[in-house]
Amino acid sequence: MAGEDGMTGEAAEPGTVRPGGRTARVREAVLRAAEDALTEAGFARLDLTDVARRAGVGKTTVYRRWGTAAGLVADLLQDMADQSVPRTETGTLGGDLRANADLVRRTLTDPRQGPLFKALITAATCDEKAAQALHRFYERRVEEWAPCVEQAVQRGELPAGTDPREVVRAVSAPLYYRLLTTPAPPDEAAATQAAAAAEAAARAGAYVRGSLRGRDAANPPRS
Amino acid sequence: MAGEDGMTGEAAEPGTVRPGGRTARVREAVLRAAEDALTEAGFARLDLTDVARRAGVGKTTVYRRWGTAAGLVADLLQDMADQSVPRTETGTLGGDLRANADLVRRTLTDPRQGPLFKALITAATCDEKAAQALHRFYERRVEEWAPCVEQAVQRGELPAGTDPREVVRAVSAPLYYRLLTTPAPPDEAAATQAAAAAEAAARAGAYVRGSLRGRDAANPPRS
Repeated sequence: MAGEDGMTGEAAEPGTVRPGGRTARVREAVLRAAEDALTEAGFARLDLTDVARRAGVGKTTVYRRWGTAAGLVADLLQDMADQSVPRTETGTLGGDLRANADLVRRTLTDPRQGPLFKALITAATCDEKAAQALHRFYERRVEEWAPCVEQAVQRGELPAGTDPREVVRAVSAPLYYRLLTTPAPPDEAAATQAAAAAEAAARAGAYVRGSLRGRDAANPPRS
Repeated sequence: MAGEDGMTGEAAEPGTVRPGGRTARVREAVLRAAEDALTEAGFARLDLTDVARRAGVGKTTVYRRWGTAAGLVADLLQDMADQSVPRTETGTLGGDLRANADLVRRTLTDPRQGPLFKALITAATCDEKAAQALHRFYERRVEEWAPCVEQAVQRGELPAGTDPREVVRAVSAPLYYRLLTTPAPPDEAAATQAAAAAEAAARAGAYVRGSLRGRDAANPPRS
């Protein structure tokens, strides 16, 4: 990854998440300034000159490196994807899914993260490059939580063949849908409901992979 | 409603969805032009002068009546909310939810409706007035499909106290989430899975109203 943005020579050692060096420091300052600007005014008003000023970086540097507002958002999403957020392990599927739902709820209702995520989604609906970066970000997050479902399958809590990613996505989906389509931001009850619904559907076999995907989940055969 | 946008005197009879008269014809032409523009280029590039030209209407009229791009989107959403889409009635909860999921899938993957809905969501994340109009639109659509869940409760297919709106939202949520966060648009298998998961969770009691909302749905008591 480091090679893609020209920082290869500056990484102090393999595995360093934030390599030192001026290029990396500039990126860090610009991405944090971009976050501030997106949080305050949304994607439609994101302006590279303003971001450069906030970051204390030359305007030319910002335009040369990121090119457009969408390009800057795509790099911010890459940076966010690279930040590992360790998942909570509670020992039960229900506990893990509730922890995940609560993390999503707290993010979406956070005074800073909430507007930031809305701005990122806006950018993704407007620009293909930002959309691809957003997809990679969610893919990474989903991968991080998938093991809680895999372990539940191993423990026999869920049917064999359950698609872990689909279960993880099922927890987030109603919280994002609520954020975008209703006036009420997702609350604790919504998070609890999202986790419980995903678990119930998973137990019923709704996320078992294959051509019969979901078809008979609501009425599983009594074997 | 007619009174709010100055068309009171022109409605031919109560209950007429599209009253005649010049004002109504202008609105119709402008909203269809706005749809075209949103579908082609998204919300960020929506320009009232361009919409006026497409609609063959004076620029001053459009600016005076709608004011801003967000104001125009809000009125378009009001118009969309007023178009009644009769729900499919299949006689079973599973059939009704699958019909709903398939309608959502077809809308989101339609070459015209898909980009339009992305643009409407973008507008709602950028502007409070557009957001309120989007919320009213989804509220109306959810209300239209709620009876299929109410009937399932009456038939004994679902537990008493199930919140019909939550079940209807649960069908749409994964399809919108997939549209926004993954590169793969929702396909038939995704629609089938969304409907089956919502039904399974509803049968398990995940959408029963009240303080225990969802808490015990994944492990219902064996009574």
